[in-house]
Amino acid sequence: MGQIDNYDGDGLAELIKQHDIRNPETDSEVLPPIPFNLMFKSTIGPSAAAPVYLRPETAQGQFLNFKKLLDYNQAAMPFASASVGKSYRNEISPRSGLLRVREFLMAEIEHYVDPEKKQHERFSEVSDLTLPLLDSETQLAGRTTPKSMTIKEAVTTRIIDNETLGYFLGRIMLFLLKIGIDPSKIRFRQHLSNEMAHYACDCWDAELLTSYGWIECVGCADRSAYDLTVHSKHTGTPLVVKEALAQPVEVKEWQATLAKNLAGPRFKKDVKTIQAALDSLDQDTLAILAAELTEKGAVTITTTTPLSDGRTTTTSLPASLLSITQTTRLQTTRAYTPNVIEPSFGIGRLLYALLEHVYWHRPDDPSRAVLSLPVSLAPTKVLIAPLSSHPHLAPLARALSARLRRLGVASNVDASAASIGRRYARNDELGTPFGVTVDFESVRDGSVTLRERDSMAQVRGSEDEIVAAARNLVDGVETWEEVMGRLAVVVFKREEGNEE
Amino acid sequence: MGQIDNYDGDGLAELIKQHDIRNPETDSEVLPPIPFNLMFKSTIGPSAAAPVYLRPETAQGQFLNFKKLLDYNQAAMPFASASVGKSYRNEISPRSGLLRVREFLMAEIEHYVDPEKKQHERFSEVSDLTLPLLDSETQLAGRTTPKSMTIKEAVTTRIIDNETLGYFLGRIMLFLLKIGIDPSKIRFRQHLSNEMAHYACDCWDAELLTSYGWIECVGCADRSAYDLTVHSKHTGTPLVVKEALAQPVEVKEWQATLAKNLAGPRFKKDVKTIQAALDSLDQDTLAILAAELTEKGAVTITTTTPLSDGRTTTTSLPASLLSITQTTRLQTTRAYTPNVIEPSFGIGRLLYALLEHVYWHRPDDPSRAVLSLPVSLAPTKVLIAPLSSHPHLAPLARALSARLRRLGVASNVDASAASIGRRYARNDELGTPFGVTVDFESVRDGSVTLRERDSMAQVRGSEDEIVAAARNLVDGVETWEEVMGRLAVVVFKREEGNEE
Repeated sequence: MGQIDNYDGDGLAELIKQHDIRNPETDSEVLPPIPFNLMFKSTIGPSAAAPVYLRPETAQGQFLNFKKLLDYNQAAMPFASASVGKSYRNEISPRSGLLRVREFLMAEIEHYVDPEKKQHERFSEVSDLTLPLLDSETQLAGRTTPKSMTIKEAVTTRIIDNETLGYFLGRIMLFLLKIGIDPSKIRFRQHLSNEMAHYACDCWDAELLTSYGWIECVGCADRSAYDLTVHSKHTGTPLVVKEALAQPVEVKEWQATLAKNLAGPRFKKDVKTIQAALDSLDQDTLAILAAELTEKGAVTITTTTPLSDGRTTTTSLPASLLSITQTTRLQTTRAYTPNVIEPSFGIGRLLYALLEHVYWHRPDDPSRAVLSLPVSLAPTKVLIAPLSSHPHLAPLARALSARLRRLGVASNVDASAASIGRRYARNDELGTPFGVTVDFESVRDGSVTLRERDSMAQVRGSEDEIVAAARNLVDGVETWEEVMGRLAVVVFKREEGNEE
Repeated sequence: MGQIDNYDGDGLAELIKQHDIRNPETDSEVLPPIPFNLMFKSTIGPSAAAPVYLRPETAQGQFLNFKKLLDYNQAAMPFASASVGKSYRNEISPRSGLLRVREFLMAEIEHYVDPEKKQHERFSEVSDLTLPLLDSETQLAGRTTPKSMTIKEAVTTRIIDNETLGYFLGRIMLFLLKIGIDPSKIRFRQHLSNEMAHYACDCWDAELLTSYGWIECVGCADRSAYDLTVHSKHTGTPLVVKEALAQPVEVKEWQATLAKNLAGPRFKKDVKTIQAALDSLDQDTLAILAAELTEKGAVTITTTTPLSDGRTTTTSLPASLLSITQTTRLQTTRAYTPNVIEPSFGIGRLLYALLEHVYWHRPDDPSRAVLSLPVSLAPTKVLIAPLSSHPHLAPLARALSARLRRLGVASNVDASAASIGRRYARNDELGTPFGVTVDFESVRDGSVTLRERDSMAQVRGSEDEIVAAARNLVDGVETWEEVMGRLAVVVFKREEGNEE
């Protein structure tokens, strides 16, 4: 499995030839694979000479700002940056709704961490959470049943590489559950070494089950120091964190010193060349030469450029001209390139999977669909429905709408001529979680009803009570069960047919 | 003034020649203007043959969805759609920070309205608001002092074309004030007829005064029926609203009818050609022909294709074969193309102007800058500052941070070694509106201080009191003055030097 990622274009061409792979529709031979740039190219400015590319990922914009971000955080580690934005890839064959598109919205966090301290301060908040892990070992054994285990266990056994990666996998799980993803349709799949991007040291995808199969919706990679190292190399700007060491460390160093007052007259203008040769020696070589110098009284040095005689590149240095000694210096800071843990959310894919997971129909009527969006995600929180088009009801509906707007609760008045049951049904399908109905009792005593989308249960109370309940429900301060417990539940006699 | 917009490329070339306009640096002649596509071009898919363009505005995506949006709103008018997204223009000379860029964020509302009912239901909410209006009349008189008048007055005198446009100008004003724009640096400038886009019937720009002069930051145009008409024409899909008429209208129509039983035998296969000729006649022509038929007993009809004799395209029809009568039918619906009022916000420009408007320094110290972002816009709401690095203070700061996070209040712990005054100063410059300081009294009695950025005033209270006050301030439920009124105000003796 996953063997195809082991081949490059030429390798695939070979395979095509070897197995005589043909166009399944016409049975004609196929051409060998050609390289194709997945980035969109354009030109910028008045001349057509300056090519630009639409970004294929949002991460690099954050890495480019690393120095500023570190400054902003007063050089304290760890810290994180985040961005939400469009990315563009010239997919050859876009398909499957929002799952494979050419322009897509990504939300990415880059968490910068000391490679030697991949513990996470808030790890205990998620460590007991159980995740369905399809690790590489299981996949390589040809199986597809995830292992259910706590994050703590997975990190301890090194199935997940480190605490910080485990922490973010936990937070991704909690996020998926919060937005309404079906817990039975989540698995975390580890990348195999042959599919893992060149920069990653461990990578997991949160995959969600849809009608198109398991789809990667969130990635979580430990990108190691790859990106910052490459940016640093190409710009010549060090992208490192300097940390004061709690205990200064004694560093022992070999140093070769020419006795200049003697070496000058002896070697004349060759002194510089010889000094350069000595400076380029590494610590291990110096240690060996020091021993040799003590033992034999002289060492032979090779220079990179010929000496002034124009022929030789070696010279013997006696102990009278050269000393090699070990010195000790106190190192008080440590410099390192942070590693990056990157949770990366594909917003369109998450939205698509969510819509599949929360769309269902009433058991007794396949035509009555319901979109059970969580309250926090529903674009309209409250439907306001006057029972009929009677002119006494419209002003009450308008006043309710204005009142909810002032409280920051998004509502929508459906005053169309359709029956109240029909209007409930279509707003259920739009995902509106609550409905307030204004009827003739409202005109008499100011009371209104509040209906919950999934259960279709209703409570009745004064306008003040219902508005307060709606606000609490939308703010997540009170549950529907709690509201049912304290307000008058409306009981429909079966023969009245309720709203059906 | 504004004359340059009256010339096309050739006209400008003529002007350049006529006035011998030269490159001011080299005094050499300049080439005539060339047309330049401000849209970025790319190609899509595996072949390079399919050109695509990055969108230069976000509005059209909304118009393309008009039919769905109308359906979603159960065909009730008026209604609005909105979008937030990037637009791209290949500016020849990007400059001035965020003011002239090639990629910019726009937030646009398209409000669809009956062209015969441009009143707005909520007009009274803004009608008494006074706006600084630089109308076209003032500009054409060469003056730049705006007229200060209420929106009601401006709409009544038709300086602003209609109530809906006036309503949105009012809402734009309220929005600008809410995000912290300096009211003395706002003006609404009306487009002159020679600069108004071809589609607009009235257009106003909210211009903000910056160090680069007055900058257009929000546009508000009445785009009339232009966009929907063009989309409808090119797609062949009617984009109209059908409205039941309260009173059905009697429509009188002339109709020409051939007496088929006689005309058939008489004209044989020419009947179809003659019928088509009759069908293509408009109402005015039919009225004239009806009179002629009554008067002369016959009319002459011209067909578009020759008759079966192959030569003639005219034929005389006597009253025995043709009748032209006026019928009356009841029209119960009215169809119209909505007009569009479009408030369009340039987010980058607004942000730039805002930063200029709220950045200032303490009167006694030019080096102490303050960014007075409104609380709702500040990315970090509360600075948490332990007075010193004493190990007793850090756990209190961490607990406070966790508590504010649970309440949804964004905070930032600044535990760096800098003095408390230095940390206040740098967080003032970052725009953080409030600061909670944890000191040794906090360790003793659990009390902490809360500081307000602009006034530097401080109150002291229990952690519960201060957390509640911070939340109220961030939610806009309580003002700083109210908090000062109910909690103990910290008084600094001058000799103590407070934080300076």
